[in-house]
Amino acid sequence: MNKLITLEERPEGKPSESNFEIKTEEKPALKEGEILLESKFISVDPYLRGRMNDGDSYIIPFKLHEPMSSMVVAEVVESKNEGFEKGAYVSGMLQWKEFQTHDGKGLNKIENKNVPLSAYLGVLGLTGLTAYLALDTIGKLKEGETLLVSGAAGAVGSVVGQIGKIKGCKVVGIAGTDEKIAHIKSKFNFDAGINYKTTDDMAKAIAENCPDGVDVYFDNVGGNILDAAMQNINDFARIINCGAISIYNKEEVPKGMRLEGIMVKKRALMQGFIVRDHYEQFPEAIKQLGEWLADSKLDFDETVREGFENVPKAFLEIFEGKNLGKMVVKM
Amino acid sequence: MNKLITLEERPEGKPSESNFEIKTEEKPALKEGEILLESKFISVDPYLRGRMNDGDSYIIPFKLHEPMSSMVVAEVVESKNEGFEKGAYVSGMLQWKEFQTHDGKGLNKIENKNVPLSAYLGVLGLTGLTAYLALDTIGKLKEGETLLVSGAAGAVGSVVGQIGKIKGCKVVGIAGTDEKIAHIKSKFNFDAGINYKTTDDMAKAIAENCPDGVDVYFDNVGGNILDAAMQNINDFARIINCGAISIYNKEEVPKGMRLEGIMVKKRALMQGFIVRDHYEQFPEAIKQLGEWLADSKLDFDETVREGFENVPKAFLEIFEGKNLGKMVVKM
Repeated sequence: MNKLITLEERPEGKPSESNFEIKTEEKPALKEGEILLESKFISVDPYLRGRMNDGDSYIIPFKLHEPMSSMVVAEVVESKNEGFEKGAYVSGMLQWKEFQTHDGKGLNKIENKNVPLSAYLGVLGLTGLTAYLALDTIGKLKEGETLLVSGAAGAVGSVVGQIGKIKGCKVVGIAGTDEKIAHIKSKFNFDAGINYKTTDDMAKAIAENCPDGVDVYFDNVGGNILDAAMQNINDFARIINCGAISIYNKEEVPKGMRLEGIMVKKRALMQGFIVRDHYEQFPEAIKQLGEWLADSKLDFDETVREGFENVPKAFLEIFEGKNLGKMVVKM
Repeated sequence: MNKLITLEERPEGKPSESNFEIKTEEKPALKEGEILLESKFISVDPYLRGRMNDGDSYIIPFKLHEPMSSMVVAEVVESKNEGFEKGAYVSGMLQWKEFQTHDGKGLNKIENKNVPLSAYLGVLGLTGLTAYLALDTIGKLKEGETLLVSGAAGAVGSVVGQIGKIKGCKVVGIAGTDEKIAHIKSKFNFDAGINYKTTDDMAKAIAENCPDGVDVYFDNVGGNILDAAMQNINDFARIINCGAISIYNKEEVPKGMRLEGIMVKKRALMQGFIVRDHYEQFPEAIKQLGEWLADSKLDFDETVREGFENVPKAFLEIFEGKNLGKMVVKM
């Protein structure tokens, strides 16, 4: 028999275990052109909460009484598709099932065996790809420049900072606890960090930590921290709008500093980034990130839970802040 | 004898004729490597007012008791520089003098004889170059897209709109009087216009006039009109920050709608533009604009005053709104 996890009710507010059900079904039979996949690592992510809601969102809602899905690393245990050999590993958007069949379309083949499989859900998955591709397409870091990152201890921010160091930049991170600041400096090689929760004048703190000004600001949060960063940008600065947590879920768009005067005076570039626009660059990005990882130039935080039945619990733990870095479940 | 116009006192508020003095000097003698220039058209521009102030500005202040300068079209009447033949015409940042010597560096040689000389101070000068190069480097217009322009009846905006039509775009202009709206449609081929002074809900008016959304917004003003435009942008829109009149000269940076949420969701690009960063592209841009002008694909508004002595008066008239389009003085 095969186990699967379905969405049984839509949460109001915080999700709970009763939203999910672990069911069993016949192990699926393989058709011509298909592969049989056995899940090895399942990713649980905050954004899945949005897909548990009904109604309009710009990501498609999960259907009730049907399996949940997320990024999964799986082994090909049977193949009737000549593109995939038995024993190969893949990552992709897959259902929460122990075993599932697939036509192979859109799956990423895992070629680099020198990195841990779970990395394909984090630093080699969407969060690492977001960091790499946003810097590549918008940031265009040059050696010796100053890179400022908000959400610096997060899955995206920590990779952004490390890429900055690899490229020879001065890297300053912004995060919300002194522990996170210490961590990004010791583990991820940030040159400096600013705890925005204990800092009154963020513009001044950024000026002090970035004495040559800010050339690239990687913004994962928006809001007042963006305003403070903008007061410190250099001519021809690049600002990557990668997240605006501080203004999501508000009914009215909040007010902030008008930025157009600074934009003109500094000839700055500001650009929004969503990683799914850049599928065609995923293979080259995964290759580069994988090489850095194998060479120990990149590190990452990961919290691993074990057992297929514990996927819902691991997902819920994210909202309790029980993870450090990427939360994954090992089968 | 040679006439020149100097700055004699710095204005407080509006400038007046008493700020200037018309003086005479010996006609300058030519050294080896120099050319003698006779002014033909002198440009008077609002930005000169800023340079009449002392103290810190990001353009250099004029010196007291020394000649004013601006863009001038001049004829080479004598040459000891093999790069310039007698009888050639040039444009460049020159002093307010009837005759002056010059080493030729930084001067633009006027090659295209099929366009009026005064055009080199407007549509082939900094305003036309601003329109062309900002669209070229940031706007990247594609046929069939919708281009929205604020300050549409101005020297920059009117060229922006006409280039949009040449590129096969739908072009909508924003201006402050019904006469200007009628004018940009009849003379500059804009498809539609919005009078922001008589429109309560600008976001709605833009939506109605741009039913397919806004792909490129050329912003000459900033402020609430920018906010209204941002509510109508398409995915991958480009926003050119070319001016922010609405927020210059304010002591505190005004507040406005936070734009970072829209930037992410639409993966929009916003970039500040100042034409002097793009000197190396001036020749190709002047060539292209000159061809369009010669082919009657570009038109422009111009107000011409006559006589060297009338340069200060023509400059003052700009602040009375007595010009339609570019104000120039013919010698």
